[in-house]
Amino acid sequence: MSSLDDYLHERRAQFERELVDLLCIPSVSASSANRDDVRRAAAWVVDQFRGLKLKTELVETAGHPIVYAESPAVAGAPTVLVYGHYDVQPPDPLKEWISPPFEPAIREGNIYARGATDDKGQMLTHIKSTEAWLKSQGKLPLQLKFLIEGEEEVGSTHLEEFIAKNRTRLACDCVVISDTSQFAPGVPAITYGLRGLAYFELNLTGPSQDKHSGTFGGAIANPANVLCSMLAALINERGQVQIPGFYNDVEPLTPRERDEFKKLPFDERGFMQKLGVEALRGEEGYSTLERRWARPTCDINGMLSGYTGEGAKTVLPARAMAKFSFRLVPKQDPKIISAALEKRLRELCPKGVKMELVSSHGAPGVVVPLDSPYVAAAERAIEHGFGKRPVFMREGGSIPVVAIFHDLLGVDTLLLGWGLDDDNPHSPNEKFCLADFHRGIKASAHLWQELGQIKRT
Amino acid sequence: MSSLDDYLHERRAQFERELVDLLCIPSVSASSANRDDVRRAAAWVVDQFRGLKLKTELVETAGHPIVYAESPAVAGAPTVLVYGHYDVQPPDPLKEWISPPFEPAIREGNIYARGATDDKGQMLTHIKSTEAWLKSQGKLPLQLKFLIEGEEEVGSTHLEEFIAKNRTRLACDCVVISDTSQFAPGVPAITYGLRGLAYFELNLTGPSQDKHSGTFGGAIANPANVLCSMLAALINERGQVQIPGFYNDVEPLTPRERDEFKKLPFDERGFMQKLGVEALRGEEGYSTLERRWARPTCDINGMLSGYTGEGAKTVLPARAMAKFSFRLVPKQDPKIISAALEKRLRELCPKGVKMELVSSHGAPGVVVPLDSPYVAAAERAIEHGFGKRPVFMREGGSIPVVAIFHDLLGVDTLLLGWGLDDDNPHSPNEKFCLADFHRGIKASAHLWQELGQIKRT
Repeated sequence: MSSLDDYLHERRAQFERELVDLLCIPSVSASSANRDDVRRAAAWVVDQFRGLKLKTELVETAGHPIVYAESPAVAGAPTVLVYGHYDVQPPDPLKEWISPPFEPAIREGNIYARGATDDKGQMLTHIKSTEAWLKSQGKLPLQLKFLIEGEEEVGSTHLEEFIAKNRTRLACDCVVISDTSQFAPGVPAITYGLRGLAYFELNLTGPSQDKHSGTFGGAIANPANVLCSMLAALINERGQVQIPGFYNDVEPLTPRERDEFKKLPFDERGFMQKLGVEALRGEEGYSTLERRWARPTCDINGMLSGYTGEGAKTVLPARAMAKFSFRLVPKQDPKIISAALEKRLRELCPKGVKMELVSSHGAPGVVVPLDSPYVAAAERAIEHGFGKRPVFMREGGSIPVVAIFHDLLGVDTLLLGWGLDDDNPHSPNEKFCLADFHRGIKASAHLWQELGQIKRT
Repeated sequence: MSSLDDYLHERRAQFERELVDLLCIPSVSASSANRDDVRRAAAWVVDQFRGLKLKTELVETAGHPIVYAESPAVAGAPTVLVYGHYDVQPPDPLKEWISPPFEPAIREGNIYARGATDDKGQMLTHIKSTEAWLKSQGKLPLQLKFLIEGEEEVGSTHLEEFIAKNRTRLACDCVVISDTSQFAPGVPAITYGLRGLAYFELNLTGPSQDKHSGTFGGAIANPANVLCSMLAALINERGQVQIPGFYNDVEPLTPRERDEFKKLPFDERGFMQKLGVEALRGEEGYSTLERRWARPTCDINGMLSGYTGEGAKTVLPARAMAKFSFRLVPKQDPKIISAALEKRLRELCPKGVKMELVSSHGAPGVVVPLDSPYVAAAERAIEHGFGKRPVFMREGGSIPVVAIFHDLLGVDTLLLGWGLDDDNPHSPNEKFCLADFHRGIKASAHLWQELGQIKRT
């Protein structure tokens, strides 16, 4: 393995230059104005695979394209599917970025750009580790299949259909995804649980246009007031979601899991400092890690109504809009939650206000079993790459595709996150630690070695 | 009076052209980008008065200038102060205008433009009636003083100071303001009551920047969620404001007043149709006119938080903002309301969220006595101009200066509104009926005649 490690060491500067190239492309999948940029990022990924002589295809969808590539099968060794995404979140609010989101800048060992950690930087580690094998060893110790999509940040709209139609082509023994975080700096982790998501936009309409709040105030329902009272009614003072049936399928945390969460070196004071808050707050009766990883939430993601410019404008707004979402835990079904929510909101919406609820995307939460040879291989590979054995943690975010792989391909996913929890993946000043980028590449290279030694049964 | 009426008739086209000129100037006082436009509108008004050889002054303030003009005193006849404003509301949302807000367009007898009714069109009626007297009769039958400000839409910031410092110069027997509406088309009115206003902006800050709602949701207070629950807590299900002491100084409606409101030809179905709503809603136990004219309200005027663009973005917002205001009734003190509100909001705001409350402007409500010779003169003048005796009504909006004139000059105000309640004064497609523009000029011209006959005591 020394020639492999040598290759990784020698190519550090090249890997970083390539990361910068990819991060320069504003592949914001939610924005129709960036459609061509998204395509450009897909083409960039295609070029990487073609450069490695992998069998590569740019798969068109009704939305953004999927990049698929595979190496030849290796007799007796398993097949591993690497999933990642080349699209990124919108960069708003722009003015809070210290350096522009699509002009990568390196400060104190971190590279700052939209997509640095989520997921361009992390996804690239698996391409570079593959390159290292092929360039230094001439071949891979197992078969790799790459599925890199461009719609992860908009709900992976067309991915499920592609997977369903390509089960044979995508057949594998396990999936590897790097789109999560380490537990803390110097504490690498394997993530075995993810929360799900149900995302909504609520549009309320009152009068046909904005009205004078003096002449009409008191006569008609104000959609902004109604929006506040409807959304406020969804959570009580104890932080519990107030939708009938919401908790029906929530599995309580086991005493063992609560114990293990407690043992993790979670620095609550440091966590608060990083977030810039003076207090933590959430559902009563649960620790912070429990609330982040294993309890459902209801968070408003955006809200707009009436006059929001400079100065005072005494309007009674015609419309009010909120985007809000629930993080779900395993067994909660986004479809059931969606129906229960709509029923509750219709009860809460008064006459004189019209309501429209748009359900944009949902995914169930997942928990992956820990007693498999794949997990053991990943533990060893991470120890190689990061110099430390990983801890086992859960994550508050959602990677909907994990449930899809389980349901459609019948395989579990290794979530090997190289990021850090202050990487700001959906916020201004997203970053990725360059040392972790290289450690991730090394861990990935060793992962192919470790997984390659598992006998296919 | 026939030569006066002839002049009015002959000059209709000229008056309309001048109205168009004034409406073309985007004198949005709330917008610092329009500072020069505001000044241009002031200069336009100055030119009008100078053209009539009135003693005219452009009075500088720390904000937008005040235009002051006066005609010579008339022995034995009263002095009347005409108040109006040349500034306008912001035109947002722009895309809802059928014709651009500062390109006046005439459709079906109405002129559409920002400021058409509020207050450029109405204010101009008094300048044109004065012109008619001076051009057709050579002199006015009473002394007129004009006080035309440029900050009405931003709380008349510098007006009170000017009035306080110029009591002698502004001394008068009554004030005339046309900045309200008729009761209905063909039902001219004298408005004897106005609501007050207390306007606020609430800024909540949670984490130092937008965060990933998966990784952090459940761990910290979400300022958008908190904003909704704080604002929702200010009103109960019966439409009553929930701030301790809020109703302490509210005078109950008298049985006589409730009776008189009931007698007015209020078309509730037509009102709903015009607004485009299927139901009316407000404080329980009061009729629609009572709620609009004589009961206090709490209305959100604008709200902004997190991601409001296309698609879904799973952020936990760093900040949430709402602009909201209370319409107040006579005797309610904006300062007392403001203090009680701030106390209540601080109780409602949880740890982990920082709150800032900005109080932008306030005004008490007023009621004007009806048993004066000035009111009787106005009744006759309106009958001349509109062909019908006016009804007596109240208004839901606020004209803060009415209370200031009462307190500082010791005089009451005649609120003679030429507008209609569907003129959209703070909304897209603001309009003013051109027939009412001319009727208003005629009523105003006859008002100078009627008021001039009142013996000064």
